[in-house]
Amino acid sequence: MPYPEKFTGFQVNGPDTWLEFHKNEFQPRPFGDYDVDIKIECCGVCGSDVHTISGGWGEQHFPLAVGHEIVGRAIRVGPKVTYVKEGQRVGVGAQSGACLNCRQCKNDNETYCREQLDTYGSIWPGTDIVLQGGYSSHVRTHQHWVFPIPDALPSTIAAPMLCAGLTAYSPLVRNGAGPGKKVGIVGMGGIGHFGVMFAKALGAEVWAISRSRSKEADARKMGADGFLATSEKGWNEPHIMTFDLIISTANSFEGFDLDAYLSLLDVHGKWVSVGLPEGEGVKVRSQTFLGNGCFFGSSHLGSRRETLEMLQLAADKGVKTWVQEVPLNEANLADIMKKMKKSDVRYRYCLTNYEEQFGA
Amino acid sequence: MPYPEKFTGFQVNGPDTWLEFHKNEFQPRPFGDYDVDIKIECCGVCGSDVHTISGGWGEQHFPLAVGHEIVGRAIRVGPKVTYVKEGQRVGVGAQSGACLNCRQCKNDNETYCREQLDTYGSIWPGTDIVLQGGYSSHVRTHQHWVFPIPDALPSTIAAPMLCAGLTAYSPLVRNGAGPGKKVGIVGMGGIGHFGVMFAKALGAEVWAISRSRSKEADARKMGADGFLATSEKGWNEPHIMTFDLIISTANSFEGFDLDAYLSLLDVHGKWVSVGLPEGEGVKVRSQTFLGNGCFFGSSHLGSRRETLEMLQLAADKGVKTWVQEVPLNEANLADIMKKMKKSDVRYRYCLTNYEEQFGA
Repeated sequence: MPYPEKFTGFQVNGPDTWLEFHKNEFQPRPFGDYDVDIKIECCGVCGSDVHTISGGWGEQHFPLAVGHEIVGRAIRVGPKVTYVKEGQRVGVGAQSGACLNCRQCKNDNETYCREQLDTYGSIWPGTDIVLQGGYSSHVRTHQHWVFPIPDALPSTIAAPMLCAGLTAYSPLVRNGAGPGKKVGIVGMGGIGHFGVMFAKALGAEVWAISRSRSKEADARKMGADGFLATSEKGWNEPHIMTFDLIISTANSFEGFDLDAYLSLLDVHGKWVSVGLPEGEGVKVRSQTFLGNGCFFGSSHLGSRRETLEMLQLAADKGVKTWVQEVPLNEANLADIMKKMKKSDVRYRYCLTNYEEQFGA
Repeated sequence: MPYPEKFTGFQVNGPDTWLEFHKNEFQPRPFGDYDVDIKIECCGVCGSDVHTISGGWGEQHFPLAVGHEIVGRAIRVGPKVTYVKEGQRVGVGAQSGACLNCRQCKNDNETYCREQLDTYGSIWPGTDIVLQGGYSSHVRTHQHWVFPIPDALPSTIAAPMLCAGLTAYSPLVRNGAGPGKKVGIVGMGGIGHFGVMFAKALGAEVWAISRSRSKEADARKMGADGFLATSEKGWNEPHIMTFDLIISTANSFEGFDLDAYLSLLDVHGKWVSVGLPEGEGVKVRSQTFLGNGCFFGSSHLGSRRETLEMLQLAADKGVKTWVQEVPLNEANLADIMKKMKKSDVRYRYCLTNYEEQFGA
């Protein structure tokens, strides 16, 4: 049964067999008046995909095709769709639903709506359908989470921006990154590399902060003004109380000396954690925050408005994802999942050659 | 040897004998051009005093007279003093030194200066003199930390504002408490009761948050618009994502369900901890902060500018400390320290009758 009755995706059956991808047909959720069907062209590979299928984030609904950095063509639009035209090149990120009525939704905070739905893994309300992600032939998405891609951005450059890019961009703009501000980016992975590039594009002074100097040359090419290696003794001392904002993409709290990092912040400076480390967390004492009155917080994705602004900024300033393109198939998926688990990526995989799998 | 060569104070010799106060003479630090000598009239009793002498905050310098909510008369001013006139009624709070030259000091953040000195317990730079607090006949303080008291404020009403009051007031104003904002105050102790009164005086909607309802009637008299008792099942649910700001004065993290509290905050709302619980701290996971993108932080006292504004606001709006006056002597000190340890105070002790101990 071809599209539009069925989509096809590379699904995993559960964490015990998380490296075994099976190409299955699945039934999409019902098509609504505001929905857009997208024939997928490429999809970035996010750390969330690995956490989800390998069990790191707890129980999930399977079988599941992950992937939420999607770019493709709008091939069908619902009668009430106004944001997108049929045939347009568009993207979908990690969020695909919210009530759009609550105070949060009305204030560009739909990512904090209590009814928010993830692009994959959420149950479609009123059904038992598990939403499927972008390792698939198509995706069906409410227009609010469908973003036209500026012509200047190639698809594989744009796709990883839709989760990793936005995750870095939103806390930067919400916390004032710009000229005259000193911003730190902790962790030089997929999100971190966007953090450096977007902080720079926004006009801030940006420092990459990583365990070793192995990625220093890359960071500087991305636009970092400076680099701190936390394995070096006294690494934080020359910079105490000089940072306005630190975005942490750290994936683990193991051996994490939070005090040393927080000491970098100027008075009332903010530490925004956008990585979601597995495990127990880190112990904090009020005293840790006293020396500078700093704040520790977290940020979840970003709004539609921010997504559109980010894509335009990237187009205007020539921000280019460092992308490794990989043709979509079972063997490549297993291979890059293993590499992701070891953080062996510089700096984002993007799955391509969808027509070979799903036809033209 | 009388004043000005020697001051006299009620000192403790160490945590093993923290209920034994001894009336001793001590040598003040050298008198400088910007200094003010104050003959003390009364002094509030702060939780810090108890933490310090009973060992809860670790090693301290003894013998030590604590007390940092001081009101008295300026009886001598240095040749360069311009903020204070001889004979004026003035106050001193918990901070008594900073460089006054660094970026923090120049931005009304002298409380975050790396050279800040506490009113008691700090070593005076270049000497081995341990600064002594307000359970004493006199205090010698740089004019920057000497605050004229508005005539409308009685001394025992004003004194507790200088630490407890400011500790609540500064994070309120720095984080936008005012009309249209919903503010929570966790813990109905000395700082908490100021939190309720000052949040109200600033025009915010204010909710007191306490374990039981035992202090609800008091909180409402102080101006609380609402009251939440955290021992009641589901206490947070009707208020999830509705608070803009929560000031926590909690003195202990034991049995503290931080997630339930943080869930009260609206998107990017702030939790500011001004209590300094003893012990290990509380474990946080980035995930805890994800639902609303909230921030956890801390705040330390406030600036000179804020102190003056707070005293004027209190005078203008009739904010009145709920004060229990206690004549200063050895027996009363031991008694109220024991009561403080049990949080048996509504809502601030203030030591009085200084002339009986130290003469007119």
